[in-house]
Amino acid sequence: MPKISNKGFKMPESPIRKLVPYAENAKKKGIEVFHLNIGQPDIKTPKVALEAVKNNAVEVLSYSQSAGSEAYRQKLADYYHKNGISLNSNEIIVTTGGSEALRFTLGSITDPGDEIIISEPFYANYIAFSTASAIKIVPIISKIEDNFALPSIEEFEKRITKKTKAILICNPGNPTGYVYSKEELQKLAEIVKRHDIFLIADEVYREFVYDSSVKHQSVLSNFGLEEHAIIIDSVSKRYSMCGARIGCIASKNKEVINTALKYAQARLSPPTFAQIASEAAMDTPQSYFDEVIEEYKERRDTLVSELNKIEGIKVNTPKGAFYCLVELPIDNADNFAQWLLEHFSINNQTVMLAPGAGFYSTPGYGTKQVRIAYVLKKEDLIKAVNIIKAAISKYNLIENRKKHFVKTI
Amino acid sequence: MPKISNKGFKMPESPIRKLVPYAENAKKKGIEVFHLNIGQPDIKTPKVALEAVKNNAVEVLSYSQSAGSEAYRQKLADYYHKNGISLNSNEIIVTTGGSEALRFTLGSITDPGDEIIISEPFYANYIAFSTASAIKIVPIISKIEDNFALPSIEEFEKRITKKTKAILICNPGNPTGYVYSKEELQKLAEIVKRHDIFLIADEVYREFVYDSSVKHQSVLSNFGLEEHAIIIDSVSKRYSMCGARIGCIASKNKEVINTALKYAQARLSPPTFAQIASEAAMDTPQSYFDEVIEEYKERRDTLVSELNKIEGIKVNTPKGAFYCLVELPIDNADNFAQWLLEHFSINNQTVMLAPGAGFYSTPGYGTKQVRIAYVLKKEDLIKAVNIIKAAISKYNLIENRKKHFVKTI
Repeated sequence: MPKISNKGFKMPESPIRKLVPYAENAKKKGIEVFHLNIGQPDIKTPKVALEAVKNNAVEVLSYSQSAGSEAYRQKLADYYHKNGISLNSNEIIVTTGGSEALRFTLGSITDPGDEIIISEPFYANYIAFSTASAIKIVPIISKIEDNFALPSIEEFEKRITKKTKAILICNPGNPTGYVYSKEELQKLAEIVKRHDIFLIADEVYREFVYDSSVKHQSVLSNFGLEEHAIIIDSVSKRYSMCGARIGCIASKNKEVINTALKYAQARLSPPTFAQIASEAAMDTPQSYFDEVIEEYKERRDTLVSELNKIEGIKVNTPKGAFYCLVELPIDNADNFAQWLLEHFSINNQTVMLAPGAGFYSTPGYGTKQVRIAYVLKKEDLIKAVNIIKAAISKYNLIENRKKHFVKTI
Repeated sequence: MPKISNKGFKMPESPIRKLVPYAENAKKKGIEVFHLNIGQPDIKTPKVALEAVKNNAVEVLSYSQSAGSEAYRQKLADYYHKNGISLNSNEIIVTTGGSEALRFTLGSITDPGDEIIISEPFYANYIAFSTASAIKIVPIISKIEDNFALPSIEEFEKRITKKTKAILICNPGNPTGYVYSKEELQKLAEIVKRHDIFLIADEVYREFVYDSSVKHQSVLSNFGLEEHAIIIDSVSKRYSMCGARIGCIASKNKEVINTALKYAQARLSPPTFAQIASEAAMDTPQSYFDEVIEEYKERRDTLVSELNKIEGIKVNTPKGAFYCLVELPIDNADNFAQWLLEHFSINNQTVMLAPGAGFYSTPGYGTKQVRIAYVLKKEDLIKAVNIIKAAISKYNLIENRKKHFVKTI
């Protein structure tokens, strides 16, 4: 039988999705599963976007421009301008989700064997995209005790080699919820300029910042990074349109955009219906965002306050995005998450969590952590945390008995 | 300024799309451009598909399963069964276009530096996908004089090394229109089994076969290639839904599908609206296909008969797909195609062609050839060929004068 490649073998399973079969089994047994594992909001997609698709006048569903429709890119440029980011429509390429934007970026600036530096924990699929591009992630630990703040500049400098092509940040952070300060971004700007490498910023959660004292800073607003910054963006979270699969790559570096365009041409075009939805979504009224942000803020506060009732838990208040990476008083979060789906429920309800180790590339890190996406209603979050709390007690009881049993035989 | 990668630099521009700026300039001058360069049919998308999107009941446009919706995959399995291809729904992963199916395939079975063998001319973007995967295409010339038939087995054997991971075919062929016979596929089956490598078959034009004497053969119908065959498929041409961006990868080799699924998980899911359209499109009545195939057959016959009126042209009658690769009596098709857009028109109409060299990886081949997509109405094809005919005379006159001028000074 012909063999798959080393790269294919090394591709990680998604830690966010790998427990899906256990969840499906639980559902078959009639158990309701609260999905805290995946960043799939329950928030309704703006009507203006859905209506545009319903009222489309397409007769021949044809290819669009490889870079995305000109009208949509112009609207994106206006959107960035309003957010203090100066970009022209020809500095933006519409992609099939933020995922493709990152793939085009890595394809444009790295060769096999090259390195990118990321502070971990980080979005699990960064490992997958790096493996697919045959490049190496060089991690720097950011600690739960420091609320996952930017590690020191010295830590970055120590890791920069001739093979380093970029530093990649996610801001606001998935899975940490951390929002980098202006000072932190200034430090990053200095490093990338000094070493003449790129700064890739995944800013798909730009709007999701919850405290008036915190203001999101884009890498393309006043850091002098015109040649160095590449923005990864997406409509998935902004308009609760994860299934559209529309994102974009934006950069003022012409070589980057010209190269990314060649990748875009190879895959012909981004999906047409989804572009119709995304373009229309730009007319979503501000009231929609105000309500959504208020809702997420309340969910965050509810979640953190409920989680703090669990003895032995380590939890920070995330400043943005809609994730919370917490450390549970258990031995192994992979086992615990699977056990929750297979063996635990209260009133026929259980919880699906994303085990933390998948968000680290350094082996042994995050094994007691789980990522919780607060994408459910407050009532459900309260129920879910109560289930987790009761589950921890029972799980630890069983684990202790097992250990005792092993000792006594 | 930080630099793009070698890989990014090497990524080819699409030969099908690279002349777009010249076409846009022509249009700005008020010239109508007949697009023979791109496989974008003018055929209407089936109503059943468009209506399903208009009537969708989506409120939260959420991620679908990474492998694509179970209902759609089941319908795909039924479709394959009807076409004599035995596949279960779990042997199919829905992808964002055939492009992504090929990307998942190359990611699953090749490492940087590996080789795949393709008979050239071939679909231009194969070069782009190979460059993106940092692998090498090893070409075997198939000749216009032989109507691009499969080269001899000896030619394949000579090129197989330890690094060869697959033979890739496009059947029916883009850009050649060639349809491989059962005997040719049996020969390919023997080679891949003997050397234990994969046979990747891009079968997106499966339905587009025009002569009752020719029957399309899938690599998964009775060649004993259960472990070796990988099918690349797409709805783009079948239902004139190029803008949907839905395709699939299908294989009975479980390791291949499991590995491709990890790539699918990394990019989360294929686009939702497009899956709704694609699932509904499976209910397109047979009459639609009968009409479409009859229309393409007439277009093909019209095109070939018109082209044969051009003195010095080399043209075969393509058996399938909707492309014709012809050799023109000119010195350089790249220059000619650009000149057509910049300097030539009849009654304010001109033609856009895809220069042939982009469909070869061996330098110097195909320089006098162009790919013509017969995706336009017969009247327009006749007009377009008349324009090409007149253009060739004038172009050669100018070129000869230039040479004469150079000689006399």
